[in-house]
Amino acid sequence: MTYVKDFDPKKQTINELVRQMKDTAFNARKLAESVDILEEMINDKKCTKFLGLSGALVPAGMRKCIVEMIRNGWVDVIVSTGANITHDLSISLGKEHYLHCDPDKTDDVEMAEKKMSRIYDVVSPDKTSITFEKNIQKIFNEIGEGDFSTYELMEWIGKRIDDENSIVKAAADCNVKIIIPAFFDSILGLQVWMYSQDRKMRINPRKDLDYMLKLHFDMKDNNETSGVFVLGGGVPKNYILQAVLIPEKPHKYAVQITTDNPQFGGLSGATLSEAISWGKLTKDSKTSCVNCDATIALPLMVSSLKERFFK
Amino acid sequence: MTYVKDFDPKKQTINELVRQMKDTAFNARKLAESVDILEEMINDKKCTKFLGLSGALVPAGMRKCIVEMIRNGWVDVIVSTGANITHDLSISLGKEHYLHCDPDKTDDVEMAEKKMSRIYDVVSPDKTSITFEKNIQKIFNEIGEGDFSTYELMEWIGKRIDDENSIVKAAADCNVKIIIPAFFDSILGLQVWMYSQDRKMRINPRKDLDYMLKLHFDMKDNNETSGVFVLGGGVPKNYILQAVLIPEKPHKYAVQITTDNPQFGGLSGATLSEAISWGKLTKDSKTSCVNCDATIALPLMVSSLKERFFK
Amino acid sequence: MTYVKDFDPKKQTINELVRQMKDTAFNARKLAESVDILEEMINDKKCTKFLGLSGALVPAGMRKCIVEMIRNGWVDVIVSTGANITHDLSISLGKEHYLHCDPDKTDDVEMAEKKMSRIYDVVSPDKTSITFEKNIQKIFNEIGEGDFSTYELMEWIGKRIDDENSIVKAAADCNVKIIIPAFFDSILGLQVWMYSQDRKMRINPRKDLDYMLKLHFDMKDNNETSGVFVLGGGVPKNYILQAVLIPEKPHKYAVQITTDNPQFGGLSGATLSEAISWGKLTKDSKTSCVNCDATIALPLMVSSLKERFFK
Amino acid sequence: MTYVKDFDPKKQTINELVRQMKDTAFNARKLAESVDILEEMINDKKCTKFLGLSGALVPAGMRKCIVEMIRNGWVDVIVSTGANITHDLSISLGKEHYLHCDPDKTDDVEMAEKKMSRIYDVVSPDKTSITFEKNIQKIFNEIGEGDFSTYELMEWIGKRIDDENSIVKAAADCNVKIIIPAFFDSILGLQVWMYSQDRKMRINPRKDLDYMLKLHFDMKDNNETSGVFVLGGGVPKNYILQAVLIPEKPHKYAVQITTDNPQFGGLSGATLSEAISWGKLTKDSKTSCVNCDATIALPLMVSSLKERFFK
Repeated sequence: MTYVKDFDPKKQTINELVRQMKDTAFNARKLAESVDILEEMINDKKCTKFLGLSGALVPAGMRKCIVEMIRNGWVDVIVSTGANITHDLSISLGKEHYLHCDPDKTDDVEMAEKKMSRIYDVVSPDKTSITFEKNIQKIFNEIGEGDFSTYELMEWIGKRIDDENSIVKAAADCNVKIIIPAFFDSILGLQVWMYSQDRKMRINPRKDLDYMLKLHFDMKDNNETSGVFVLGGGVPKNYILQAVLIPEKPHKYAVQITTDNPQFGGLSGATLSEAISWGKLTKDSKTSCVNCDATIALPLMVSSLKERFFK
Repeated sequence: MTYVKDFDPKKQTINELVRQMKDTAFNARKLAESVDILEEMINDKKCTKFLGLSGALVPAGMRKCIVEMIRNGWVDVIVSTGANITHDLSISLGKEHYLHCDPDKTDDVEMAEKKMSRIYDVVSPDKTSITFEKNIQKIFNEIGEGDFSTYELMEWIGKRIDDENSIVKAAADCNVKIIIPAFFDSILGLQVWMYSQDRKMRINPRKDLDYMLKLHFDMKDNNETSGVFVLGGGVPKNYILQAVLIPEKPHKYAVQITTDNPQFGGLSGATLSEAISWGKLTKDSKTSCVNCDATIALPLMVSSLKERFFK
Repeated sequence: MTYVKDFDPKKQTINELVRQMKDTAFNARKLAESVDILEEMINDKKCTKFLGLSGALVPAGMRKCIVEMIRNGWVDVIVSTGANITHDLSISLGKEHYLHCDPDKTDDVEMAEKKMSRIYDVVSPDKTSITFEKNIQKIFNEIGEGDFSTYELMEWIGKRIDDENSIVKAAADCNVKIIIPAFFDSILGLQVWMYSQDRKMRINPRKDLDYMLKLHFDMKDNNETSGVFVLGGGVPKNYILQAVLIPEKPHKYAVQITTDNPQFGGLSGATLSEAISWGKLTKDSKTSCVNCDATIALPLMVSSLKERFFK
Repeated sequence: MTYVKDFDPKKQTINELVRQMKDTAFNARKLAESVDILEEMINDKKCTKFLGLSGALVPAGMRKCIVEMIRNGWVDVIVSTGANITHDLSISLGKEHYLHCDPDKTDDVEMAEKKMSRIYDVVSPDKTSITFEKNIQKIFNEIGEGDFSTYELMEWIGKRIDDENSIVKAAADCNVKIIIPAFFDSILGLQVWMYSQDRKMRINPRKDLDYMLKLHFDMKDNNETSGVFVLGGGVPKNYILQAVLIPEKPHKYAVQITTDNPQFGGLSGATLSEAISWGKLTKDSKTSCVNCDATIALPLMVSSLKERFFK
């Protein structure tokens, strides 16, 4: 057993602050443990690293944190909700700009009239969507027709984006796959639906699963490992965790940031311990779950990791 | 303004209890308001009724409540996570049985050794999955090859199930569509993947979206309405809400049971008011959100509705 | 291990509904277990029964549920926040009436101007407080001067109240003690402060603790037991649990309804298992914690208990 | 309306990180706003600053953050649960040491046998309590007999403590009052109870309220202001907010860190907007509420403030 030590709010770097949190308790301690696990995962040269994205991370200003992780080689495969990718592309292709509002005072009926869509304390003007729509359709036209996995489509799109801060472009640049299991559950999906009214663009989610499973079979054959960093929960969490079931090759590392709780039985809030019973993790897996808004935890964690790897 | 009245724990029916809750406050009041809205929605003969399923409803014993809603004609389209449908089919085809455990005392490592998968205070023995696997593959063989929307596949499966208590069978019996936007994010998806190693069974999620959008365009043409009952949140919530965006035909009714909160910015916890700013609902939509574990709220609500419709 | 059984929303009594919940999972199951434990506690003739009150139970219409428990002999000692008792007395002495509002649309600045105080979706008009103030001061005048434990003061007040639905009167009628550990943290406390500007009314919280500890020493001497039903958490939860530490006589039963969570380290959300490590409970104590808004759980639980005891 | 800006995880100081969070969203933005409000409050020379303490802050290693605030003159009056003060004194007088444990794997029955009391992922050995008991009784003996407000008693104790890191000593050194409204709801209260078995030490909570109210009447007379920083909620939050009601002198600043939510109607989770309807705050008050574990938010906020005031 180790001692709790008082956090000392002295002058120090962000990483030093995080390291001090390791000696405190509750979620500060878990945050610091999570960074240690991520550091070890990144240093594990034989580890394939999965990143799960859910929640409105991009509208909340978390885009650069994700791009940083991609460009630093800390991620190999992203599994995302359609919304996060749509938000990313809306900025790159639609000049989307998110504005602050006061959630307690904003009148949603007024917002509807002004064509402003609200996400808690953020609103986005619908007018940018016209530009986005025009530009994404142009890209679809360049891509043409075919039968695509979501990661293939994302790669094609990524290569046609001129925005260094884009998650989709960064992933394409770094050969990081982006898989969107519920692809049509997003504005991007609706755009593909429109395009494919008279063109043959098919989304084939089976190819995504082929890729995921092949990855794990290969890891098993080559005695390699895998790790998971889940922001939020939802489909991305389940998809990344279940992919190990067929090859029976549990993840070695698992870190989650969530605001959900175990006692309601849903997967987003389920403890990582539960995943051991399923064979998705093992008793030797290194795991940590931080109960915290990702807008606070993620900047701290990425900043801390950056300090560790780029002194 | 109406008065708060003290809840009187007298001898009464469940519906009377719920009606009394309408005069109290906080989430009891919201639960009762939700039942009123659902009642109105069901009575609206021109209303297409969507049901969103997320969270481990079936392992938690909520299956009959959902079947009841289907067989009573209270649902037209179900949008579900893959897990709930897999759980439903596992019971019907795999003799799946869920057992209770104490979440504070259960050792997940021991569970893994005993091949018992845990969902909070419920465990399921993995051995049933062998029977499930055999039987679902047999059904796939009967279905043969083709290009399927998820609702078509679910209908084919439903027609081959001999279990009156099955959600999938009830839906097939009653011509209720089941759409699974993240189909491959489930054990059922993994089974289709296996089957399609040497057979041509393709899941085409675009056809699901075709169906959803056509429904809303038709409603618009025919001046009809739609309503939403969301258990949990996640992909089903978003998928049902976004489908109105292209036809620009907002839902008229929206009820949600959730344990998530607005202040973290995620969709599952977002207020229904936010959806007004997006044009998914309008200021005239009737909405209510209950912050409660669905295992408590759903039995109360379905029992109350049943009393109202089958006196 | 017992089986999960599907909840059947058939025609049945509230108690039958609760009994069915016992076979489901998550918080429905815990709610049903809690009722079983409370039933056993009530049947335990040698058990002193504590009730902890926190959260705005009275404004939310939970007053009669509490009075029912008192008048049925299901409670021996109440430990409460000052607010719940103030709210109870405001109705009895001030003709307080609570009104519904829509929390998402209510403008608190406007409420302040209209002298309406808000508690989520409930508002109370400040004008009733003038009547309350006049009447409570009249009662203080009748009581006169002295050195009071809070339970003595509450008893004196209770005997002077003409309202069968009052918690304070019911407690006085049934010789149930009401202890308010943070007495001056309430409008009632402010009223005593005003009264005692020129009269000698002293609140002596030590006498409350004398009473609590004597109870437990007596139980120990007489080989009797004790049990706890906590609505919410806070000071009442801690006060009831800590009272067993000096006599070293842990509670035998403990049921909590809370909306707080363990992972933030606070007492309100702490598991009842933690209390075992402190010696407040033992491994043989029967415990259950329901994560649910008390406005939903309490009416169900009291109705169910009533059916069991008054068939 | 201002723009959301992506958080850039570049090399920067903690204060720069917090300032960047101001341009993001959700709780990161609120955290940054809270620091801005606290900075303004500290700079307001006519402002009396209240600090509310609830939750297990000291066992979680937050003691130095609180001491730092006291010694920097950022606090005038502390209102605390008894537990936090007991924990502080246990370290100073009992050589209390808190140890880490894994909450998912710790057996509370075993902990009880080993005499280790658990607070989520922290345990404290009971044996230190013997030393604490001996030393606190010695201090009581030095103090002698009398009728004490809790702030007077805390001051007497604080002057007899030889530990620069103690909250109680720091407060005594800096003439910061510590008020404990539910004094006997704590181990410290139990110790006073023991001492006063044969000595006349009386706790008089009315004197605490005298002090609080006089402060606000004086502020009103002198046209001064007040501000609130609440860690957690509970009695300290209510006590600090209600004290303005009699003088009718609302607080000008209010910052809260909480993990509780508004929709359950309890005070701990109530929005600060609700307090406007009560007259505890006004529409011109500067307010911000961060939904976050205090172990993460507090170190960030105190570090950020320190950088601003001690460049």
